[in-house]
Amino acid sequence: MRLLIVNPNISTSVSELIEKEARRVASPQVEINVVTAPFGVAYIETRAEAAVGGYATLTALAEHYSDYDAAIVAAFGDPGLLAAREILPIPVMGMTESALMTASMLGGKISIVAISRRIRTWYEETVARYGMSSRLASIRCLENSLRNIATIQDDHGEQLITLCKQAVEEDGADVIIIAGAPLAGLARTVADRIPVPLVDGVSCAVRQAEAIVGINTRSSQAGSYAPPPDKPVAGLSPALMALIGRQPL
Amino acid sequence: MRLLIVNPNISTSVSELIEKEARRVASPQVEINVVTAPFGVAYIETRAEAAVGGYATLTALAEHYSDYDAAIVAAFGDPGLLAAREILPIPVMGMTESALMTASMLGGKISIVAISRRIRTWYEETVARYGMSSRLASIRCLENSLRNIATIQDDHGEQLITLCKQAVEEDGADVIIIAGAPLAGLARTVADRIPVPLVDGVSCAVRQAEAIVGINTRSSQAGSYAPPPDKPVAGLSPALMALIGRQPL
Amino acid sequence: MRLLIVNPNISTSVSELIEKEARRVASPQVEINVVTAPFGVAYIETRAEAAVGGYATLTALAEHYSDYDAAIVAAFGDPGLLAAREILPIPVMGMTESALMTASMLGGKISIVAISRRIRTWYEETVARYGMSSRLASIRCLENSLRNIATIQDDHGEQLITLCKQAVEEDGADVIIIAGAPLAGLARTVADRIPVPLVDGVSCAVRQAEAIVGINTRSSQAGSYAPPPDKPVAGLSPALMALIGRQPL
Amino acid sequence: MRLLIVNPNISTSVSELIEKEARRVASPQVEINVVTAPFGVAYIETRAEAAVGGYATLTALAEHYSDYDAAIVAAFGDPGLLAAREILPIPVMGMTESALMTASMLGGKISIVAISRRIRTWYEETVARYGMSSRLASIRCLENSLRNIATIQDDHGEQLITLCKQAVEEDGADVIIIAGAPLAGLARTVADRIPVPLVDGVSCAVRQAEAIVGINTRSSQAGSYAPPPDKPVAGLSPALMALIGRQPL
Amino acid sequence: MRLLIVNPNISTSVSELIEKEARRVASPQVEINVVTAPFGVAYIETRAEAAVGGYATLTALAEHYSDYDAAIVAAFGDPGLLAAREILPIPVMGMTESALMTASMLGGKISIVAISRRIRTWYEETVARYGMSSRLASIRCLENSLRNIATIQDDHGEQLITLCKQAVEEDGADVIIIAGAPLAGLARTVADRIPVPLVDGVSCAVRQAEAIVGINTRSSQAGSYAPPPDKPVAGLSPALMALIGRQPL
Amino acid sequence: MRLLIVNPNISTSVSELIEKEARRVASPQVEINVVTAPFGVAYIETRAEAAVGGYATLTALAEHYSDYDAAIVAAFGDPGLLAAREILPIPVMGMTESALMTASMLGGKISIVAISRRIRTWYEETVARYGMSSRLASIRCLENSLRNIATIQDDHGEQLITLCKQAVEEDGADVIIIAGAPLAGLARTVADRIPVPLVDGVSCAVRQAEAIVGINTRSSQAGSYAPPPDKPVAGLSPALMALIGRQPL
Repeated sequence: MRLLIVNPNISTSVSELIEKEARRVASPQVEINVVTAPFGVAYIETRAEAAVGGYATLTALAEHYSDYDAAIVAAFGDPGLLAAREILPIPVMGMTESALMTASMLGGKISIVAISRRIRTWYEETVARYGMSSRLASIRCLENSLRNIATIQDDHGEQLITLCKQAVEEDGADVIIIAGAPLAGLARTVADRIPVPLVDGVSCAVRQAEAIVGINTRSSQAGSYAPPPDKPVAGLSPALMALIGRQPL
Repeated sequence: MRLLIVNPNISTSVSELIEKEARRVASPQVEINVVTAPFGVAYIETRAEAAVGGYATLTALAEHYSDYDAAIVAAFGDPGLLAAREILPIPVMGMTESALMTASMLGGKISIVAISRRIRTWYEETVARYGMSSRLASIRCLENSLRNIATIQDDHGEQLITLCKQAVEEDGADVIIIAGAPLAGLARTVADRIPVPLVDGVSCAVRQAEAIVGINTRSSQAGSYAPPPDKPVAGLSPALMALIGRQPL
Repeated sequence: MRLLIVNPNISTSVSELIEKEARRVASPQVEINVVTAPFGVAYIETRAEAAVGGYATLTALAEHYSDYDAAIVAAFGDPGLLAAREILPIPVMGMTESALMTASMLGGKISIVAISRRIRTWYEETVARYGMSSRLASIRCLENSLRNIATIQDDHGEQLITLCKQAVEEDGADVIIIAGAPLAGLARTVADRIPVPLVDGVSCAVRQAEAIVGINTRSSQAGSYAPPPDKPVAGLSPALMALIGRQPL
Repeated sequence: MRLLIVNPNISTSVSELIEKEARRVASPQVEINVVTAPFGVAYIETRAEAAVGGYATLTALAEHYSDYDAAIVAAFGDPGLLAAREILPIPVMGMTESALMTASMLGGKISIVAISRRIRTWYEETVARYGMSSRLASIRCLENSLRNIATIQDDHGEQLITLCKQAVEEDGADVIIIAGAPLAGLARTVADRIPVPLVDGVSCAVRQAEAIVGINTRSSQAGSYAPPPDKPVAGLSPALMALIGRQPL
Repeated sequence: MRLLIVNPNISTSVSELIEKEARRVASPQVEINVVTAPFGVAYIETRAEAAVGGYATLTALAEHYSDYDAAIVAAFGDPGLLAAREILPIPVMGMTESALMTASMLGGKISIVAISRRIRTWYEETVARYGMSSRLASIRCLENSLRNIATIQDDHGEQLITLCKQAVEEDGADVIIIAGAPLAGLARTVADRIPVPLVDGVSCAVRQAEAIVGINTRSSQAGSYAPPPDKPVAGLSPALMALIGRQPL
Repeated sequence: MRLLIVNPNISTSVSELIEKEARRVASPQVEINVVTAPFGVAYIETRAEAAVGGYATLTALAEHYSDYDAAIVAAFGDPGLLAAREILPIPVMGMTESALMTASMLGGKISIVAISRRIRTWYEETVARYGMSSRLASIRCLENSLRNIATIQDDHGEQLITLCKQAVEEDGADVIIIAGAPLAGLARTVADRIPVPLVDGVSCAVRQAEAIVGINTRSSQAGSYAPPPDKPVAGLSPALMALIGRQPL
């Protein structure tokens, strides 16, 4: 099984983190390739940044997907995920979606621990988009501004553990999602200090991609995830143009 | 008052329809300029097309907004609207949002009449994003495939009237939204054949832009619509780069 | 355009505040007349008071509406609004409804700042009646008892600003509604001290009345806002009797 | 135990129906008195009529309550119920509320069978006001116009039975509420022709009044059902004035 | 009228408390018999304990129901209630359901005061199962571990009163439910120290059973509460086997 | 990895179907053992049958779990699943839950195709229990009575395909769940006749069990899925007693 992971952001240091964690959790037979967005921002916290990251993700997926059995959008918040699912003939997974669905099978109420205050609304809206708001106990976040996206786990490790404990004791979380690609791997390293199951987006997305490929369903030819109707299109990359519209205007 | 209208799609014939209807409904002192998306599809029906249209909208708004008092995203479904609202210092209105909020003050249950079956899910998800699903009576749509986006009103006029009547009689609609820029003006021309109030997205967005400018609130400096935090960015148009991130990577 | 504003309460000092703020925000061509309820209470905080105010509003509207293009129910909580919308052939606006719909186009989560603790449930139930509870961040209120309904802004100005700041910082409000006719004008005078958009009910209702009249829809002849079926009626004012039933018993 | 029943409408023929059914279902020790609204309409179908009926109900309750242990608002839709509950020191029951709460203990999904199409929205909004919309399977209604409010059961008996059967077979109702004071007693007479439990508003309200009086709780002195704060009031009946405000303006 | 009460737990001391309170609140003509679960736990706090208690309840009800007019499942959380309602030809009431429906007719927002922190989720899920979550103000609970289930009221009386006051002042409760069979009677003894109506599960269930029997509806022969279809069954008690399936495998 | 599958019903023919499909979909290294409920009914359609099946499931799991890495409750509707998750130290999966979470990653709106009309409410309530009702497009079911639970796929194959097509065309399903252990394998055999992804409960549960074991989270020691507090217990099987309570009464 060949798995394509797209980092919707331009941070190659985060791509390296994602790749390392993905390889650690994947089954032995899974081949993994990580691609970094060709344009965009360092990390997404807002709706505008997500719109940019979503478009960058579609562009990167269109360019690379054809050699793979499944793909992962590797930013929490899943920019471009549902759009990609419409146009690609292979399964496409998201970090938030995979983590939510996995967490739902480990407990009832779910808390998300996040890297910044500003990012919370984007996460809330993502959870709502999947119809899962009733499962959300809380979104807890670091309050200080970030020095360096590549060293959050070292700079803020104890604070993140405190947020997890507060989620359990004050918010009633049965399970916790460690959110954000820059936190990939943290769920594993701090698991024994938190009394409830911890999951992270990268490992859930990789394992869910394996599960979906294993179940081996067909792709949509009807419903709202079927490929879009043919129509004039202009100004996109040739690969994306081939997926979205077919007749240049 | 100067008003910028961005058509998120590449159809200049639809831009002309929008401009004509906007000028008709606007107060005399409003100056209007319509800009067509620099890239994208002919008309949006899917999530993938909306992701493209949203990014095209941000690009066009960033390029042109600085001479205007308010802006309108002129495709039903409001691609890029909430992202644009974050980054622009002027009010930004959407056709769906404006029509929903206006319709809410004219009746209880609202039906939307749309141009194609495939477009329904996108509209449903847009209504849900605004928290307005409980007000929705139905989304009724043309079932036949469209011959020409520029002549829908002529080609399918009677069918659209039938859909409106069914919305009232079978779905309990108190008010109807005629959706989609290609239908701009239809609400006005068929109003006397439908027994409930009819509104359309273009006229609502123009009048709501006037209302918001008249109320004269400040722009957000806090909350989830404040400008994004400064961060590295790469590969966007200079105008969009100036709004979203400030330090090139 | 001629605009009728009904104060559902018996406080003429509040009617004066409303009139002053309405004239300030209205477009130059709008003629405004404010009518005070012929019976009722000084200001509404409870369901029972709202029932009285709603009936007083219907009575006053029936008496005066025929010379106007639109009407406003000028107490936050909108007593009698939906009933009036059924029976009058002109658009009828409410302070809460107009403020909610306007605020929805300025941000995501909305907080309401109110004059007393007891009034909160009435406001909550009003927001729920419009299907907008999911947009509500919080209702913050003055805790002390009011000395004088006419001088709240002077007596409690700094407290009200503190409530606004708490709504932003603690409740995640993207936009704030200053509620209650006795607070008309406050949104404008304190705007530069609060980092998010502020709106108030009077200015929103006036501008929304202009927007709705500008869009020029027909009145309902079907659906749940059509005029009531003919039936025996007794004991109402002649004007109200003419609108609600037609055959005296 | 002494029980006051107020018919919020002016139809004395309906008051007689209510009284007959109430006496039939009540325990032997319950004394019942039925009062007809001093003003209003023949029967309520709309929000405007409900606003009138609610005010008439408050006026009648204020006049008569002091000799009773509990009161019932005897129109389906419960006009004025929550307002009355705030200001009266005795329990006040509604037909819709009592029927919904009773039906909830007999099955899962509940259908309501009603006398006219126009009345459906009012009932839907009433159910929503109690937070019970998720329990509602359907509201089925007579489609023909009513000849005479006093003879509905004779004129439309078979149609009403058909509506009940459709509610079970097509809408999945586990229990059915026969709505509207003019249908009082029908649930009992047709019970053996419908395969699920049937309840009606009058009998539920009477038995629930007995239950509440039997449990013997205190009245509210805090929360949103405590008596309103003291404030100026003008133009109400002396009895209502005494309950709502205390200082004449 | 003959009333069967089943304690789903094995604590005979709690059965005695239940019986005492049931007899106190019941009308004189009601004969009451309390049966203790033949197997299970001392008191239910978790989903697993509720599954055990539910099965024990079905077994006990099947054994004893045939001599009674109605039955009560006497543990807050109502283990087995909806299952019992399907298979028994007599009305079956639950403590939570009865208390919620009764409380709903006494105020708007409802708080529940409970005996342990762990029990809260079970209660929350029970309230949600009845579609009543929107009425819930809070669930407040004792935080200390319980010494003895039979002496909670003596050991923790003042703490319970404090929880009630916090529910009113901080959570906006209009009415409070004292939850849990071990607290039977507390609502009555502390009523004059709490400013809102207090109800408890035992007294509500007894009075609601009387109300339902008084209304005299038929049992379900259709819908989701009709008796289950005939099918093979094995290994249950003969009485339960007779109710659930008819052909031994 | 060793996987325990419990059939909550007494039908050994269905256990064989489950085992065959589980082995087909599982990764090569997974060892599978299927256990049939020691008591209960042939197949579950009602709340009462689910209560029996849930208790039988807990009993069987307690007896066998200690040699396994994960367990599956193999009846659609997941009887006893959440209870088992509390008390077992290994992951426990359910057919409905696994299918819903998997389907959510393949499309937006989900339809369930089921074996009988009576079973629909149980499925609806199960979906609601997981907070997923907003994702449900419809539950379609066979209307005829079943001849033989072991031969449904042969007896009703074409009807089931018709139900799938109706779910897509009339209900807007993006993905379909073939529900019920007696239908295990059908999703695979008819996949090429349905234009959207099809999943079934057995294959989803097996693959999700693999995913969860692969992610390797810890079990709950806090929150509402931690093991229950120690308390007196009586009359359960020794294995279940050891998991639920520890001190025999």
